[in-house]
Amino acid sequence: MEHNCNLKESSELTKTFTCGTNKEITGCRFSLYPMNSDFVSIILGSLKKTDTSAVWCDSDALSTVYRGKRKYVADAVKALFINAWRRDVHMAMEGHFSKGCPGDIAGESKLDFEGEAPNKAVVEDVNFPALCKLSLYPMGTGNYMEDIKEVVQMAKVRELNPQSIHYATRISGDIHAIFDYLEDVCKYMEESVSHFILHFTISVNSPTNEEEI
Amino acid sequence: MEHNCNLKESSELTKTFTCGTNKEITGCRFSLYPMNSDFVSIILGSLKKTDTSAVWCDSDALSTVYRGKRKYVADAVKALFINAWRRDVHMAMEGHFSKGCPGDIAGESKLDFEGEAPNKAVVEDVNFPALCKLSLYPMGTGNYMEDIKEVVQMAKVRELNPQSIHYATRISGDIHAIFDYLEDVCKYMEESVSHFILHFTISVNSPTNEEEI
Repeated sequence: MEHNCNLKESSELTKTFTCGTNKEITGCRFSLYPMNSDFVSIILGSLKKTDTSAVWCDSDALSTVYRGKRKYVADAVKALFINAWRRDVHMAMEGHFSKGCPGDIAGESKLDFEGEAPNKAVVEDVNFPALCKLSLYPMGTGNYMEDIKEVVQMAKVRELNPQSIHYATRISGDIHAIFDYLEDVCKYMEESVSHFILHFTISVNSPTNEEEI
Repeated sequence: MEHNCNLKESSELTKTFTCGTNKEITGCRFSLYPMNSDFVSIILGSLKKTDTSAVWCDSDALSTVYRGKRKYVADAVKALFINAWRRDVHMAMEGHFSKGCPGDIAGESKLDFEGEAPNKAVVEDVNFPALCKLSLYPMGTGNYMEDIKEVVQMAKVRELNPQSIHYATRISGDIHAIFDYLEDVCKYMEESVSHFILHFTISVNSPTNEEEI
């Protein structure tokens, strides 16, 4: 666990800066939270059903990380969520896509996979509505609000109903539309800055009636 | 919901830039995830038990936000987690502290509270171990890795056992030591940059045995 990004120790920082960065690696660290006493079997069942042959994976007690090409990382995260979904279980996933951290280096990744995303055919016909909040952090630049503005506009064009809330933006829509938007935000940001992080939370089957709040 | 921060629409951006920012407001947006079928009563019970008289609050189906002085926001978030804790329930909280967003303005906050934090006496004798991961984003600066390095050092000095993982750092310790560290990172960052965000995830009672992974 030495080749990492945020909050590194000084000795590791020196090492990774020296080694340089690998700009091809997209990463996503995420956690799945089924609000149900059967959470272990929901999570394990989904992990078993999700094809992770196109990404590098690592898990601990707090979260899982996938690293590889953007297309395959996004495919695996989306599939994990869809495979865990149950009609009657309130569930959330928090995660963050990241690319270009100066502390990141080559390794602990999979970059040689080619072709169709391995989970696409299995999950593409499973549809359900979801809520999502997201926060985008373009790093090392003074103009970061411009990118944020552009990304909100992308959500508007896709009719994901972006709404500004303190410290985040909410969107809503079909689960595929939400995940595809997150992937396309990453694609857009790759062209704009050398390092960005996109935090997201996706929620389904919430019992909260917002009209009653 | 017009006075917000991340991913704003362009018209709101113009408005909020014009209005200026309020540098006194610390905010924390968070979600609580008890992995238990009784999650509604755990969350509602904790909300009822937590004194939020010192902060401004707002909730929706995805998360809750507290805004006010740092001390009272940190007190309320810590109390909400401790009040929700049950010895036998795996639970996580994800959240992010934020201060100084250029899109933020005065309002939707509470800044006139003084004195002792209202939840301190109620929760200070409740102790249990927890795991935490965190990611720090100092915005609008090219030197952000320096702050990150310093904040890891703070965790080391406090014997929170910081460990670098991809895109985050893990710490572990008593729940008070973890929350107090997060608050002190905010305090440190206030002196360093005009805008920062500190994402965190705290987990208790995980059934995952990391030695078996």
